[in-house]
Amino acid sequence: MSLPVITLTTDFGVGSAYVAMMKGVIHSRCSDPRIVDLCHSIPPQDVNYAGYYVREALPWFPAGTIHVIVVDPGVGTDRRMLYINVNGHHLLCPDNGVWTLLRQEKAPEVRILSNRQHWLAEVSNTFHGRDVFAPCAAALASKVAPEKLGPITEEWVRLPITEPTVDGAMIQGEVVFIDTFGNLITNIPFQMLPSTIAVSMGSQRITRIVPSYGHAATGEVIALSSSSGYLEIAVVNGNAEMKLQARRGEIVQVRSGRISI
Amino acid sequence: MSLPVITLTTDFGVGSAYVAMMKGVIHSRCSDPRIVDLCHSIPPQDVNYAGYYVREALPWFPAGTIHVIVVDPGVGTDRRMLYINVNGHHLLCPDNGVWTLLRQEKAPEVRILSNRQHWLAEVSNTFHGRDVFAPCAAALASKVAPEKLGPITEEWVRLPITEPTVDGAMIQGEVVFIDTFGNLITNIPFQMLPSTIAVSMGSQRITRIVPSYGHAATGEVIALSSSSGYLEIAVVNGNAEMKLQARRGEIVQVRSGRISI
Amino acid sequence: MSLPVITLTTDFGVGSAYVAMMKGVIHSRCSDPRIVDLCHSIPPQDVNYAGYYVREALPWFPAGTIHVIVVDPGVGTDRRMLYINVNGHHLLCPDNGVWTLLRQEKAPEVRILSNRQHWLAEVSNTFHGRDVFAPCAAALASKVAPEKLGPITEEWVRLPITEPTVDGAMIQGEVVFIDTFGNLITNIPFQMLPSTIAVSMGSQRITRIVPSYGHAATGEVIALSSSSGYLEIAVVNGNAEMKLQARRGEIVQVRSGRISI
Repeated sequence: MSLPVITLTTDFGVGSAYVAMMKGVIHSRCSDPRIVDLCHSIPPQDVNYAGYYVREALPWFPAGTIHVIVVDPGVGTDRRMLYINVNGHHLLCPDNGVWTLLRQEKAPEVRILSNRQHWLAEVSNTFHGRDVFAPCAAALASKVAPEKLGPITEEWVRLPITEPTVDGAMIQGEVVFIDTFGNLITNIPFQMLPSTIAVSMGSQRITRIVPSYGHAATGEVIALSSSSGYLEIAVVNGNAEMKLQARRGEIVQVRSGRISI
Repeated sequence: MSLPVITLTTDFGVGSAYVAMMKGVIHSRCSDPRIVDLCHSIPPQDVNYAGYYVREALPWFPAGTIHVIVVDPGVGTDRRMLYINVNGHHLLCPDNGVWTLLRQEKAPEVRILSNRQHWLAEVSNTFHGRDVFAPCAAALASKVAPEKLGPITEEWVRLPITEPTVDGAMIQGEVVFIDTFGNLITNIPFQMLPSTIAVSMGSQRITRIVPSYGHAATGEVIALSSSSGYLEIAVVNGNAEMKLQARRGEIVQVRSGRISI
Repeated sequence: MSLPVITLTTDFGVGSAYVAMMKGVIHSRCSDPRIVDLCHSIPPQDVNYAGYYVREALPWFPAGTIHVIVVDPGVGTDRRMLYINVNGHHLLCPDNGVWTLLRQEKAPEVRILSNRQHWLAEVSNTFHGRDVFAPCAAALASKVAPEKLGPITEEWVRLPITEPTVDGAMIQGEVVFIDTFGNLITNIPFQMLPSTIAVSMGSQRITRIVPSYGHAATGEVIALSSSSGYLEIAVVNGNAEMKLQARRGEIVQVRSGRISI
């Protein structure tokens, strides 16, 4: 329904000249591109964070969208660069696993970016976002077929996934994402929870499972379903990350009748 | 003259996956949308700040623009969601008063968003920005008539407004907005001021009323007309918020011959 | 190939209502504009920083692009406002030298913005970004000829440039830009360096000259060519600005066999 758009996700920092350069290259190489800034404040070199960001954000775009994801600590080494078709989305990223948390409805098509025809004529050692990924995105937006970018590969780096474990009446997971409100998103699917539950994280016990933030008093620690359907721990009108001094990787336990974090 | 654009104002944080999801939904549901990021750094849940932001920014857009404003501490409760036509602008926001500081040239048209036909099929409890407001914006951009979104209402929440008071020769107002330079914008219309004035805020006296920042020395505390026509207190090439340790709500007094802040 | 785009570079802060106002004015005055946010986090009033930002970012856009650059401590004084055609790019900015670090392929065309016909009807003293530059950008995007904006001038403010000096076997330059990773970009062209070199900055000696970040161990201080071709000092997977407590203006010395920073 929409024209194809090109989304950008990087760790370059908001307002970075590097993002500007990528936009300049895309505007130089395709007609009237639709560029959408997703995020430029991925923590530097944090491929794992980027993986969860991508898993949350990308599925809401229409099939046919071109997504450029540049978190690239290995730039300039022999790490490969990839084109991926997953669920009809076109992704361009270094081969670091950043896309592998996306649910795959069928086997993805993965190609090695190796055809220099669609790159900038001169390629630096330190900035393939500008010199390779941006021009390849412009090529795709200009209807260059993916097979022109490089050959199929069957091997790629996968991001480690921590799945929640179930031990009798206890489910154990961890905090995998913290949003800008300080809400703690875990890897425990909300639908996995029994009807009467309780959560604990460290010494913090959570006694209120609510449908949304407005159902408890300001300052109260609550558990609820995140907007993506995972167990979320939040402070009403406050910041759970700060109040609970929580970090990604923090263990969260759910038992019938009690939640501990 | 322009095609309709959709502006986004939220407290989700710059680079938030939630903003990305809203953009994805809009791109999925209307053809070639023009999305303009206004602000995603409204302080969390600060409806009052958002109200002043909206009052400053929105009037500069052309009639016909679609403005989505999601600062929504009450999400998931029975707070209502609204469509508003004010001065020919189309607004979509929770019923929290965020739009009520806008000057109304005639009586606004206010509707309750209740027609689920234009929402996502599945609606979460915690993210109506993605599940209700974004698809309704896409519907409006696709020329769905506002009356299709829901019925007229004559009642809505209003943001409290603090008007300046006049007591003899003294005008008293307050700081209502602080910009990114730390300039303190008050609620006192500049044209309300007598020709010879002085300003005080706490123990700070301001002796220089100037046309613009460049008319006084670096570091000097000055009073001037803000770009929207209100009394503004600034530090030349500096930050008045930090230097004067000022906050929103700080009392500002104007007398003939003396300004105190 | 592309339609003309309008880029925005300011020191107004990300999410500033002032940026929103400029976008509103542009959308009000031209049909379906392509606005591209470059940077709104130029340090306040830091024309020198903006000059390096512009030098890095702008050359990557196609000729015909309209660039609006508003870092304007002199707003409201008698500082002039300019239109510049440099290498086929159209620039609009205060006459503060912000564009003069751009390499000029031929003599630029410089005009004084003086024709009020293309400004807003009412012009404030404090915000010419909204009242002059935004409507002039909309005019250019609407194919108004540059000569309609004002007369040619042969004089303009130039930004001071610090060129590296060569004294026998020693090249001395300085840090002129620090990116969001904390990488220190100097003013020493990488191609100026001898084949065997060493860098020092203060007491810090750098012994590794590498093609890219991935060629040394995490935490190591390295020297390499920046993506724009200047000597860059970085910490692998770290932040050189913080680790070396470096600032813009820091002296960097290169000798055969040894680099000091």
